Amino acid sequence: MLGYAKSLNKLIEEFNKLPGIGPKSAQRLAMHILKKSMEEAKNFAYAIVKAKQNIRNCKVCSNLSDEEICHICQDPTRDKTTICVVEDPRDVLALEASGTYKGVYHTLLGVISPLDGVGPEDLKIKELIYRIKQENIQEIIIATNSDAEGETTALYLAKLIKPLGVKTTRIACGIPAGGNLEYADQMTLGRALQGRQIV
Amino acid sequence: MLGYAKSLNKLIEEFNKLPGIGPKSAQRLAMHILKKSMEEAKNFAYAIVKAKQNIRNCKVCSNLSDEEICHICQDPTRDKTTICVVEDPRDVLALEASGTYKGVYHTLLGVISPLDGVGPEDLKIKELIYRIKQENIQEIIIATNSDAEGETTALYLAKLIKPLGVKTTRIACGIPAGGNLEYADQMTLGRALQGRQIV
Repeated sequence: MLGYAKSLNKLIEEFNKLPGIGPKSAQRLAMHILKKSMEEAKNFAYAIVKAKQNIRNCKVCSNLSDEEICHICQDPTRDKTTICVVEDPRDVLALEASGTYKGVYHTLLGVISPLDGVGPEDLKIKELIYRIKQENIQEIIIATNSDAEGETTALYLAKLIKPLGVKTTRIACGIPAGGNLEYADQMTLGRALQGRQIV
Repeated sequence: MLGYAKSLNKLIEEFNKLPGIGPKSAQRLAMHILKKSMEEAKNFAYAIVKAKQNIRNCKVCSNLSDEEICHICQDPTRDKTTICVVEDPRDVLALEASGTYKGVYHTLLGVISPLDGVGPEDLKIKELIYRIKQENIQEIIIATNSDAEGETTALYLAKLIKPLGVKTTRIACGIPAGGNLEYADQMTLGRALQGRQIV
């Protein structure tokens, strides 16, 4: 960009590289950094390097972790007999935020997606099978997304896990809490009817 | 946030402090950093600290600069007899991008805004008057924004500068290039008529 000092241009460029941050937003964010105190700017810079240095995938469940084994797998109060299988570490966060799940997780780090060239061997599936065989697992909850890739992966996993004699469940699909039937799409309504439960 | 490793939480928090970045965006940006190489992450962190360390206001025009005097004020090819007065360093960038201005700038670092408690003494106005008195200035172009505060500041400056015998102009207000009369507001149309020029 013309008209700006070099080191400001460099910072704007760096912000511009982030997803969803265009040139104007990058400029606004860089200006914001200049308004911060030196200490705040250093804290931000330190957080970036620190996260990049420390974060790795948990050896057990592949969730993001500061240590070899993530804090959920390490937690003695969690129910180790139930594994919830998710696509992405972000899904772990979403489920944790719901506050209703006390078991452990297994992160696949992706979904089966032939169009993107992602097959079962690219995911943490054999690690999941290993856990099922080694640990005393009572239930596998498949919590992949409800899109085409997520459903495919769920079906694939179910076929793989059922022969091992472990109860395999899929999270419910239906009307979102607070949702309105009128605005729900046909697919969701169909699934909600299929998945109806006795009250 | 629950469910994430500490250093990742810290990075998400830092992103969340930026203007216009909510918790979900902060999460996405932090995840993006983790996907970058260590070198890229370090470059980003370095750009933050470097910009904060180096950037200051130019001693002459108050534009943001890496050095005591900004590269525009240092440029011998710029016409030093014309000063364009703007509110903010971002305005300098916008004008530079237009590629039509060859003079120098003076950044006020704000506008007169009694509601926000900003008076003329809080702006770089006495520095501007000093430049007009010391240097051989032929024209002052007032390019503050076309909102209430910008217009007030423009009027204030015009009253202050005119007695010094320097030609004082205000950038034109009218229909934006490529704009449609039908969608222009009354105020803009009124100003466009007032500011009509012989073709």
